[in-house]
Amino acid sequence: MSSPAKFDRSEMESLLTKRFFYAPSFSIYGGVAGLYDYGPTGCALQNNILSLWRSHFVLEEDMLELDCSILTPAEVLKTSGHVDKFSDWMVKDTQTGDIYRADHLVKGVLEARIEGHLVAKAQKLTVGGDKNGSGASSAPVKKAGKKGGKKAGSVAVELPETLVDEYQNVLAQLDNYDGAGLGELINRFDIRAVDTGNPVTAPVEFNLMFESSIGPTGHLKGYLRPETAQGQFLNFKRLLEFNNERIPFASATIGKSFRNEISPRAGLLRVREFTMAEIEHFVDPLDKAHPRFDEVKDLQVRLLSAATQLQGGTEVTEMTIGEAVATKMVDNQTLGYFLARIYMFLLRIGIKKDRLRFRQHMSNEMAHYACDCWDAEILVSYGWIECVGCADRSAYDLSVHAKRTKERLCVQLPLPEPVVEDVVQLTINKKVFGPKFKKAAKIVEEYLTSRTECELLDLQAQLNAQAEGGAVTVTAGDGNQYAIDRTLVSIDKVQVKRSVREFIPNVIEPSFGVGRILYAVIEHSYWVREEGDGQRGVLSFPTCVAPFKCLVLPLSNSEVFTPMVKELAGALRRMGIPAKVDDSSASIGKRYSRNDELGTSFALTVDFQSVKDDSITLRERDSTQQVRQSKQVIMDLLQKLVKGEMTWSQVTAQYPLFTTTQESS
Amino acid sequence: MSSPAKFDRSEMESLLTKRFFYAPSFSIYGGVAGLYDYGPTGCALQNNILSLWRSHFVLEEDMLELDCSILTPAEVLKTSGHVDKFSDWMVKDTQTGDIYRADHLVKGVLEARIEGHLVAKAQKLTVGGDKNGSGASSAPVKKAGKKGGKKAGSVAVELPETLVDEYQNVLAQLDNYDGAGLGELINRFDIRAVDTGNPVTAPVEFNLMFESSIGPTGHLKGYLRPETAQGQFLNFKRLLEFNNERIPFASATIGKSFRNEISPRAGLLRVREFTMAEIEHFVDPLDKAHPRFDEVKDLQVRLLSAATQLQGGTEVTEMTIGEAVATKMVDNQTLGYFLARIYMFLLRIGIKKDRLRFRQHMSNEMAHYACDCWDAEILVSYGWIECVGCADRSAYDLSVHAKRTKERLCVQLPLPEPVVEDVVQLTINKKVFGPKFKKAAKIVEEYLTSRTECELLDLQAQLNAQAEGGAVTVTAGDGNQYAIDRTLVSIDKVQVKRSVREFIPNVIEPSFGVGRILYAVIEHSYWVREEGDGQRGVLSFPTCVAPFKCLVLPLSNSEVFTPMVKELAGALRRMGIPAKVDDSSASIGKRYSRNDELGTSFALTVDFQSVKDDSITLRERDSTQQVRQSKQVIMDLLQKLVKGEMTWSQVTAQYPLFTTTQESS
Repeated sequence: MSSPAKFDRSEMESLLTKRFFYAPSFSIYGGVAGLYDYGPTGCALQNNILSLWRSHFVLEEDMLELDCSILTPAEVLKTSGHVDKFSDWMVKDTQTGDIYRADHLVKGVLEARIEGHLVAKAQKLTVGGDKNGSGASSAPVKKAGKKGGKKAGSVAVELPETLVDEYQNVLAQLDNYDGAGLGELINRFDIRAVDTGNPVTAPVEFNLMFESSIGPTGHLKGYLRPETAQGQFLNFKRLLEFNNERIPFASATIGKSFRNEISPRAGLLRVREFTMAEIEHFVDPLDKAHPRFDEVKDLQVRLLSAATQLQGGTEVTEMTIGEAVATKMVDNQTLGYFLARIYMFLLRIGIKKDRLRFRQHMSNEMAHYACDCWDAEILVSYGWIECVGCADRSAYDLSVHAKRTKERLCVQLPLPEPVVEDVVQLTINKKVFGPKFKKAAKIVEEYLTSRTECELLDLQAQLNAQAEGGAVTVTAGDGNQYAIDRTLVSIDKVQVKRSVREFIPNVIEPSFGVGRILYAVIEHSYWVREEGDGQRGVLSFPTCVAPFKCLVLPLSNSEVFTPMVKELAGALRRMGIPAKVDDSSASIGKRYSRNDELGTSFALTVDFQSVKDDSITLRERDSTQQVRQSKQVIMDLLQKLVKGEMTWSQVTAQYPLFTTTQESS
Repeated sequence: MSSPAKFDRSEMESLLTKRFFYAPSFSIYGGVAGLYDYGPTGCALQNNILSLWRSHFVLEEDMLELDCSILTPAEVLKTSGHVDKFSDWMVKDTQTGDIYRADHLVKGVLEARIEGHLVAKAQKLTVGGDKNGSGASSAPVKKAGKKGGKKAGSVAVELPETLVDEYQNVLAQLDNYDGAGLGELINRFDIRAVDTGNPVTAPVEFNLMFESSIGPTGHLKGYLRPETAQGQFLNFKRLLEFNNERIPFASATIGKSFRNEISPRAGLLRVREFTMAEIEHFVDPLDKAHPRFDEVKDLQVRLLSAATQLQGGTEVTEMTIGEAVATKMVDNQTLGYFLARIYMFLLRIGIKKDRLRFRQHMSNEMAHYACDCWDAEILVSYGWIECVGCADRSAYDLSVHAKRTKERLCVQLPLPEPVVEDVVQLTINKKVFGPKFKKAAKIVEEYLTSRTECELLDLQAQLNAQAEGGAVTVTAGDGNQYAIDRTLVSIDKVQVKRSVREFIPNVIEPSFGVGRILYAVIEHSYWVREEGDGQRGVLSFPTCVAPFKCLVLPLSNSEVFTPMVKELAGALRRMGIPAKVDDSSASIGKRYSRNDELGTSFALTVDFQSVKDDSITLRERDSTQQVRQSKQVIMDLLQKLVKGEMTWSQVTAQYPLFTTTQESS
């Protein structure tokens, strides 16, 4: 197979378009950035990935699958923090008004400058001391175009090595900058709009949610969900009941989510509408051990920690997931278990081990709800891409929804022994309280009852410090100040006996971007086969995800082959093996090639001998080897190959290779 | 099983909530009308229905599955006609501003009046001549509430029989009224707002699409797709190429669509966000024969024609689909073939034959794109509900998109013999034309080139009728008038030889509302079993759609059963049989009942004898019969039952029934 170094993205993309894996949506209308349609092959590939995901995660762990609404009222996403915080920073060209995503602009410009620096240095070496030559002052070095480079406009200018180091340090932790930080970088490094060279505005926040209005009145504002998670949290009580009030358990959802990206780019990697597969694993915050951790503890994984990145480094550490949890690099067993399961899943569908790592989020980079997060990142021609996020969302979401709706989104566990606990108790003297505050009584009461134990003890101390009749002034939820004195409330420590422990569970969330994974599977499966008459793209998908498992083809379009081809196609359908008949008039070699481009694992060929003796040939895609046996033997082999009960090398060990000159059409 | 007459919807609904088939979305926030979440059972039921749909339609007919964008730019839906015509009529209460969907209001009021009339007549009979009694002038007869009746507020008032006939006639063709027609009905019958009795406004159009804006500029208006069809049409050229330029072929999509219903109601039956499964079958307009029609022609179906409805009737005609096509009641073989396949699919997933009919659309009722349409309607407790539409969209969509985008969305078929055809040819004399019209030249040329042959011949006649130098005035696309004379254009009939026929294909579109079908399957599967200690709901799903196929349960929660329960659960997982373990402390009878409520087809029970001799019992849900055999025999039977290779009566014919008193816990 060809090495990644020889990879030509534009060639692969033309194959993907020709075989209709995916294509820009609405292209006959000029297209819309960040929206793609999946064709028959892409759709089958996606269905296969999702069906394996369902069996690997949902069925394997008895997860509770949900299908929740995409349209979400604004209030829900206000509570979850998305209305205020789910945004990216954008800047505008001060002359043209063109919009850039601030971090992408900084990244693009700094990377281009580093590249220009390297080119300038290389030119100096090759030109050899030509100090007045075309080196440093040459025209822009265009590296974009066919080879898929993205740093168009990089100019060969040598920079001080200390500045290059500074750039690299910034790039390593770019995700850690907020708007002010990005603005500061833009000023410090004089970063300008790429297309015009104009200055850009200071970064402003742009919320990434698509807004709409629900119902005929126009008064109920809603958003398209930016993640499937909220629907799962809002159903927590029903799920807990369905699970007979036991914990831990997980829910899962496969579905579309929407993000109004500022500048969609890089094909399927940054889009505005995408399929997600998300798991919310609800767990006791005091016990994040996982019962099946032992099954995965010896798995070797490649980890890039937050600490390494903050020092400007990008080196991964290889260790077992058991070690990673034992050394607290990964916080707990449950998080570690899911990292391991994610890793196994990705390898199973065709991701290459040496192009896969887990990267820990830095503190400022973390989503507003997360307290620890590791991304499964996959290396493709665009660089390392986040494909699965695995976050510990702690009790954040359930807590904010519980507080907002006054629903008790918690678990009650019977304690083995009842325990006696000190509790701070607030008693409101309603007879005095109501008449004193009148209409405001409710809001003052709400203020008091929503204090933490510490705050209540503090208030108690303040009250006790007052002289008789003295009052403490507090600011309630309406922003007004109210005077509280000892006739209105009493605060006491009392002992209570508890037989249950009540808590809001923590949530570990593995979240899969299906389109990104699908693209990575395609890139990792793609290679170029040298053939007599040129080069042919091959997609070496694992059979479990291949859009079609088997091609059926007659040697030529002679009618003599038709009955047998029909019979084989019918048999494959009954066996549940997705197959495709190619009875077009193209040469058999061309049809095999077409099929390799579709990533079809096997081919059954019917020729004149087949009609005579009922034998057929079975061809394997990657080796192009064939065996010839009776129809019955071949169909039995095919079934075992598709089910993964047999490998091709086991087939060729047992049956002789069949050689023919047919393939070279 | 209980008859539909004894059906109690509220009891069924409480079972569905308890077992979390589905529930209102955002309910802890008070909910949003028309949005529902599917729980683990509903989600599994939906997945199973969709997976059968994929195998019954997509795999069986080699359809090309697509997954297209939900977000759709306004221009696409403007062209398709949805921006202008995809709307319902709404009226407002003139005092409160409450909004009603006009046809629903008319229907509700007229049905209530008819019901009131029938009640009044019945009271007169039972009271027996009590003319001054409480009969006609009694308080409103409340029929709503527990029994799910919807005509709350119907008043027992006897009406003239001619008026009742008129009401019934209107109701039978209510779908045929437009806004003006509904307004006329509201005036004629003095229909008022149900809740207040206030007059309502004249009906106004309300577009049913959810609007949003794509990208950071806010200038690109978009909608959430109201159907999956447009994405399939826009990809027509790619699909045709994928199919080696051959026709007929079909594309298919399973996905979410959105309609901003004015008044969502009736649970899953009228919602704002729903899963659709749509097929677009592209066919030669001159040849709508279907190669597999013979396979289905003898299938008996129940048809309600447009003609019957226009006469105010609702009687169905039973005939074979072969007869229906032969007599032109159903327009063509392809449409007939799909009606038959739809019928077979619905029966397979559990719809009852006697509660299923096909109803033809009346002309005004038809969607703006359709030229013939039959709905598969299913009878549930809300009445006859459209669950699958099967429309002939003719060449409408491809034509309008082709015209708008100037893409050639057509098929070229080689003719067996070249033919010579008369063609009307327009020649523009560019030398004179350009200087004369200057900037307007392009728009005048566009006007001329987009004329039909008939229009060109008409223009030719007009030009010929002019004296030398005379001109004909035309109105071009910019609304301005231009003078055309014989120096500018010539129009001639010429003969051309064609070796290909070029045409825009017609589209037959079976479109499935998955949520409605799922609800109908649930209602048709639901019944109540009388047990010793009361009544228990049972969901007799066909095994192919049942959320779980098998329950595994130990006799009690004694630890002695644990290893065997784990072993069985593991074996089922490896066999790919979705199963559920119930090792809760509830009695075995309760656990069986709980399971019947989930619609789980079979149960494996492990008891003390199992631990001794490795035998287990297998229970069937509907009969509650059990057989007891060795583990190996039982697992083999179970696999055959789940695959549909064996029926329960075949099992009991071969193995003795096992009787126990365990079940009545």
